[in-house]
Amino acid sequence: MLSLNIEEHTVGIVGLGLMGGAFAYALRRLSARRILACDISAQTLKAAQKEGCIDEAFLKTDAMLGQCDLVFFCLNPAIVTHVIRDSMTLFKHGALLTDITGIKLPIVQALEPIIRPDIDFIPGHPMAGSEKGGFECAKQCSFLNKNYILTPLAHNKPEHIQFLKQLIYRMGFSRITETTAHDHDKNIAFTSQLCHIIASALIHCQQNTAITHFGGGSFEDLTRIALLNVPLWTELFLENRDNLIEQITCFEQSLDLLKQLINTNNEPALKEILDTVRKRRSAMAEQQR
Amino acid sequence: MLSLNIEEHTVGIVGLGLMGGAFAYALRRLSARRILACDISAQTLKAAQKEGCIDEAFLKTDAMLGQCDLVFFCLNPAIVTHVIRDSMTLFKHGALLTDITGIKLPIVQALEPIIRPDIDFIPGHPMAGSEKGGFECAKQCSFLNKNYILTPLAHNKPEHIQFLKQLIYRMGFSRITETTAHDHDKNIAFTSQLCHIIASALIHCQQNTAITHFGGGSFEDLTRIALLNVPLWTELFLENRDNLIEQITCFEQSLDLLKQLINTNNEPALKEILDTVRKRRSAMAEQQR
Repeated sequence: MLSLNIEEHTVGIVGLGLMGGAFAYALRRLSARRILACDISAQTLKAAQKEGCIDEAFLKTDAMLGQCDLVFFCLNPAIVTHVIRDSMTLFKHGALLTDITGIKLPIVQALEPIIRPDIDFIPGHPMAGSEKGGFECAKQCSFLNKNYILTPLAHNKPEHIQFLKQLIYRMGFSRITETTAHDHDKNIAFTSQLCHIIASALIHCQQNTAITHFGGGSFEDLTRIALLNVPLWTELFLENRDNLIEQITCFEQSLDLLKQLINTNNEPALKEILDTVRKRRSAMAEQQR
Repeated sequence: MLSLNIEEHTVGIVGLGLMGGAFAYALRRLSARRILACDISAQTLKAAQKEGCIDEAFLKTDAMLGQCDLVFFCLNPAIVTHVIRDSMTLFKHGALLTDITGIKLPIVQALEPIIRPDIDFIPGHPMAGSEKGGFECAKQCSFLNKNYILTPLAHNKPEHIQFLKQLIYRMGFSRITETTAHDHDKNIAFTSQLCHIIASALIHCQQNTAITHFGGGSFEDLTRIALLNVPLWTELFLENRDNLIEQITCFEQSLDLLKQLINTNNEPALKEILDTVRKRRSAMAEQQR
């Protein structure tokens, strides 16, 4: 079992993009004993060393992972399972691993059966991304008051879950939700992937870029996330396909209902629905507190 | 013709809600000679007088309008045409009128034929609303760097348009677009009404209010405007029905295309569209500068 004190641990970060970088800065603030980072870009590693948020840089995981008590895998969904699987012999005895991938079931299904018995892998998803990607934006990526989802595995040590949760709260996150990988993927298809699809469809159906001269905030807010990291989001959409299709269909039905009420000039029914919507959105805001 | 100096004018505000109140504060900052306001709520008028943003308060327009060189009508779409029509004998000779209504064609069609020849009515739409309504939120309603649309009528005096534009810029707005009522309604159906319908549909299709525990910003941004002023937005949706239905249909087609590409796992086509979307959203952001 790991000691509960991050100041005694060597932490490894695999993938020093927006989130990996943000973890490096956060762990530095919490005085982690040593922070090692691995990335395919020598330039990124150099920048991180210059910033002082990592102690040692690696272009490959081989020499790094054996030193780490705790490892954050901050990689795209398409490669994270491969990298963890291929690293299985490299991990330090008793190490704690976690990831940040936006879909969880494919990762849990691929890794749960093959994780070394002495290793604890607690899948996670920090809800703190941004439309701005890359290590150069990591310093501005705030964890303050953000949500974090953990989807612990049956064999995870409770004290490791506790340790990770405490660390997450200390990094600034305000709520940790523990759920199953299945429910995570279902819910995230709604709050995250559906919203990105809607924003993309909204931009797709409007070719006049000067339309923003008619903007009053709504359009800008709805489509900020259309500035997406295309390879990452393509992976997320396709990996969570069934849940996402279900959510799109459900949204289409609500949209069509509103359309019909407008088209038939049904003022009372429209008002009733909008009233329900307003109250529900208010109740949702209460849940965010 | 009006003098170009707001310090020489008596300004009337009919309807002291969020926008009417925001205009009162802005005109006070610009040292308008006198600011008169009319509202059906004595409590609101009292609050405004206490705040010092109006000089005189009226529960009816009768005694007020004859004094005003410039009048802002800040009323819901359903009543604005009636109020202006019923006030036609009351206006001061040579007065300049404007409104803030979110749809323009029905208003222009109703009023253009009956405006007194000595009066100039320049229809307008400040894109500076908020999901928070009422005079009590007016002080926080910022005009800074917001858009303003004017849909001038054929007989508007160019010097009055110039005067109003100068005043709008001095109040903090950064871009004024002049267009026809027809094009305003078409464009606004997209940037404003469609966005509110999407936000409402997104809340309508999700009954679990604790879903916000899975939020990472996208969902919150997309649905902030679902906290809508139900009577106002019902009017806007129904008054601009044809344009809105057209925009919803267009959006549905884009959404369905994305859905089909995800459902058929068509990664190359999906990436191509998302790339286009990203570039177009970027170009739109450039247009906002």
